[in-house]
Amino acid sequence: MRLKVSCDLKFNLEFPTPFIGMLRPQSGGYQEILKESYFSVPAVPFRQFTDSFGNLCQRFTTTAGFFELHSSAIAEIPEALDVNYEAGFVEIELLPDSVLPYLLPSRYCETDRFSQMAVSITNFSAHGYQQVKAIENWIRINIAYLPGSSDFPISAVEVNQRQSGVCRDLAHLGITLCRALSIPARIVVGYLLDLQPMDMHAWFEAFIGGRWYTFDPTQKDKKGGYVVVGYGRDAADVALYNQFGPAVYANEQLLSVEKLP
Amino acid sequence: MRLKVSCDLKFNLEFPTPFIGMLRPQSGGYQEILKESYFSVPAVPFRQFTDSFGNLCQRFTTTAGFFELHSSAIAEIPEALDVNYEAGFVEIELLPDSVLPYLLPSRYCETDRFSQMAVSITNFSAHGYQQVKAIENWIRINIAYLPGSSDFPISAVEVNQRQSGVCRDLAHLGITLCRALSIPARIVVGYLLDLQPMDMHAWFEAFIGGRWYTFDPTQKDKKGGYVVVGYGRDAADVALYNQFGPAVYANEQLLSVEKLP
Amino acid sequence: MRLKVSCDLKFNLEFPTPFIGMLRPQSGGYQEILKESYFSVPAVPFRQFTDSFGNLCQRFTTTAGFFELHSSAIAEIPEALDVNYEAGFVEIELLPDSVLPYLLPSRYCETDRFSQMAVSITNFSAHGYQQVKAIENWIRINIAYLPGSSDFPISAVEVNQRQSGVCRDLAHLGITLCRALSIPARIVVGYLLDLQPMDMHAWFEAFIGGRWYTFDPTQKDKKGGYVVVGYGRDAADVALYNQFGPAVYANEQLLSVEKLP
Amino acid sequence: MRLKVSCDLKFNLEFPTPFIGMLRPQSGGYQEILKESYFSVPAVPFRQFTDSFGNLCQRFTTTAGFFELHSSAIAEIPEALDVNYEAGFVEIELLPDSVLPYLLPSRYCETDRFSQMAVSITNFSAHGYQQVKAIENWIRINIAYLPGSSDFPISAVEVNQRQSGVCRDLAHLGITLCRALSIPARIVVGYLLDLQPMDMHAWFEAFIGGRWYTFDPTQKDKKGGYVVVGYGRDAADVALYNQFGPAVYANEQLLSVEKLP
Repeated sequence: MRLKVSCDLKFNLEFPTPFIGMLRPQSGGYQEILKESYFSVPAVPFRQFTDSFGNLCQRFTTTAGFFELHSSAIAEIPEALDVNYEAGFVEIELLPDSVLPYLLPSRYCETDRFSQMAVSITNFSAHGYQQVKAIENWIRINIAYLPGSSDFPISAVEVNQRQSGVCRDLAHLGITLCRALSIPARIVVGYLLDLQPMDMHAWFEAFIGGRWYTFDPTQKDKKGGYVVVGYGRDAADVALYNQFGPAVYANEQLLSVEKLP
Repeated sequence: MRLKVSCDLKFNLEFPTPFIGMLRPQSGGYQEILKESYFSVPAVPFRQFTDSFGNLCQRFTTTAGFFELHSSAIAEIPEALDVNYEAGFVEIELLPDSVLPYLLPSRYCETDRFSQMAVSITNFSAHGYQQVKAIENWIRINIAYLPGSSDFPISAVEVNQRQSGVCRDLAHLGITLCRALSIPARIVVGYLLDLQPMDMHAWFEAFIGGRWYTFDPTQKDKKGGYVVVGYGRDAADVALYNQFGPAVYANEQLLSVEKLP
Repeated sequence: MRLKVSCDLKFNLEFPTPFIGMLRPQSGGYQEILKESYFSVPAVPFRQFTDSFGNLCQRFTTTAGFFELHSSAIAEIPEALDVNYEAGFVEIELLPDSVLPYLLPSRYCETDRFSQMAVSITNFSAHGYQQVKAIENWIRINIAYLPGSSDFPISAVEVNQRQSGVCRDLAHLGITLCRALSIPARIVVGYLLDLQPMDMHAWFEAFIGGRWYTFDPTQKDKKGGYVVVGYGRDAADVALYNQFGPAVYANEQLLSVEKLP
Repeated sequence: MRLKVSCDLKFNLEFPTPFIGMLRPQSGGYQEILKESYFSVPAVPFRQFTDSFGNLCQRFTTTAGFFELHSSAIAEIPEALDVNYEAGFVEIELLPDSVLPYLLPSRYCETDRFSQMAVSITNFSAHGYQQVKAIENWIRINIAYLPGSSDFPISAVEVNQRQSGVCRDLAHLGITLCRALSIPARIVVGYLLDLQPMDMHAWFEAFIGGRWYTFDPTQKDKKGGYVVVGYGRDAADVALYNQFGPAVYANEQLLSVEKLP
């Protein structure tokens, strides 16, 4: 299917402010970008670099006062994401070098504290895809998905204590449990068609059977409609923007995801 | 100064054809991009990667028939490029790792065959910037700049025999002579304000005094107006596009460089 | 000064076990390696890769039973590390791309929770080196350095609650406080001459005045003697080895640091 | 099979001289390194970096006078390299990004001048492996392999005119003809068991059927025994060492390749 996605960010800033943005969807994995647009009002110089997770990032300093960022893209994605219950666990020694960072603990994923829980949840699952599916199901049943319930990221330990969270929090718990079983897992942020309420979404991918598969503990019935904006170890790596400096007076975010004929 | 640059490419292709493009100016060095646009008609999926020279490249497969590529950007660049007759030769052991590839021979720069000539041209020059300036002057005097005179790149050896060439050929000779003196040098392709006749231009940079400086043996009086599209060891690395497959029926290229107020 | 450092690791493993090691000191920063040796008994194939922090890593699968890793190197390092109270804060927009990851929160450094504390500790310090020095001093006075007191890494939040920790814990707190002030900071693991008791050591570096400076809240009087083995965002990135699989029966570690004439 | 390979280089240098070395065999592809040693006499500091072709390189400055470099390794390699007449041509749009540089012309491989010849040599071959095999055979029959016949690299155009060359020259011609058919190809330098006379050897790999396969136009009957030291686009990228500066008085090279039980 073909989706048009867009994100408009509006700021009112006291001072010129350094930003690092990650707002440009790229072709890769299951998605292909046909057209893409990115600009600010007023126009300011930006410099791009690719971070160690493969995301195309933008560095710029805003003007003071009202400042807007516009990003839009047309993406071609499959009707339904791949599902493969036969995809097996990949032995550590066979993992590509580039996948290894997704095995380690990270800011919001205290992998080193979840070994027992991960084993107990996946006790009766075949190694690989079915373990991750068991984790996804366990989270869906046991952790309440409450959009808008937390303003800043909380870690897997905290999510597990609180028994509820936003999409990002449930993804963190899923990632953490996968890594505790030596299954590489990474966070994905992006757009999701028909998400209610519309907002930037977060889900996760696990590396099994030699490739990445998509999992989303917050969405039982979605088979597709995901457009990736960024990948990372956890939410610390995939902020849509990092802003450095004094307070922002206003901050508005408008998202849209539209299916094209 | 602020320049608006654009490049429109029109093809008529017998078959869907794989392309690798390098058409998007990036911020970096002396230039900052304020706004940038890139798309094809009809729209096709493209995937981006950064090559080992830091260029942002696009991979895509065209449709058959008429196919157009549009690239435009607004760039902020200095009125006049830096000139520094005091910039000295950098000892090999102090060169950054990333600069080393620009010391070696490459497809169109047979460095290994120009040692004597390079020494003789720069015999009375202080080491560093003044050597490169002597090379630039020598080429300007001894090799005729004939825009449109060659359709495909020729190498430094051939340029030197022929005693004439297009901008790319004169740049190759300059790069080759620099490297023969252990001065890292690289080709630059891009836009030049008020170039006559308007076309994609090629010039070169040399690494002296700890940074890159710009040289252009084809332009005696230009002090600025250069917008970089790509860097490389020589023309083999910086084709605006590489196209693979059967013949192209038509191929039109429209460039413009306009100074904004 | 010239130091000979060595690390011998002995394991007794039930099964062949995948390892990722980071045991080979490299030239870089203030240190230069003159000679370096690395091997296992029995010899097993290893494959090397450079991680995103610049560390040279080794992947291999051990044999079952007794397995030893030997690493040694001769390093040339300055008598005293650089100290520069004038080194200033670097504006975010001027930081090199490669330094940006060291601004973000990471597994053991919950930067996002320490803003107020960081400001209060450095209230009267000039921006830059003196802020980091104030942080180092604050930790030395307020957090007890208890070698051997924790077996696994704890995070900055936990260290701050516990008011004591091993070298790694104090480094985590220092890094976290720096990042909370938008000063990039990274963990360093390696050897330290005359450390009591001898063990692998951890300290931190902060990016100020355009380069990295060394800080160590656990060592009041050491001016030099540090040999770097690895850099990272925190301890999750710089394990001397990550081992995947069943339990280890025995695990012995022998370190030595010797000053050469 | 398990091979012990070693290379000893002896120099007598008028001045301290900057070197860039590429002398350390790495695990990767079909080869696994079990043990590896690298040092100089006298010991000098060296700094390592990985070049854009994946080779581990060493930078150092020698002492004046006698200077020696010693490199040795134990490598586990297959008895016979893979042969696969069914491996097919990979469409350009499906090639991994990392393979694309091996499609372009380079210093000694004037790909752009060999299209017709490449087509005529492979006229009756199935696309892929069999094309490369036809090229390898054609070179073996038409270009005389004369070890020791050229001191410095000559390009494919020159090899083709001269109708003879050293291993490196024949490899260059093979690479050039492959690329002219849009088959990625790269040079490999390294050790070969029982090579007569013993010397550093050069051969080439072509990317077909989704992976690299080995070809060697100089060796009709060798099925294995190849230990890779470096990969590149052509000889300009894989010098065992690049040395910058005044003349060398003496220069001795001792190689050995020994089969272990």
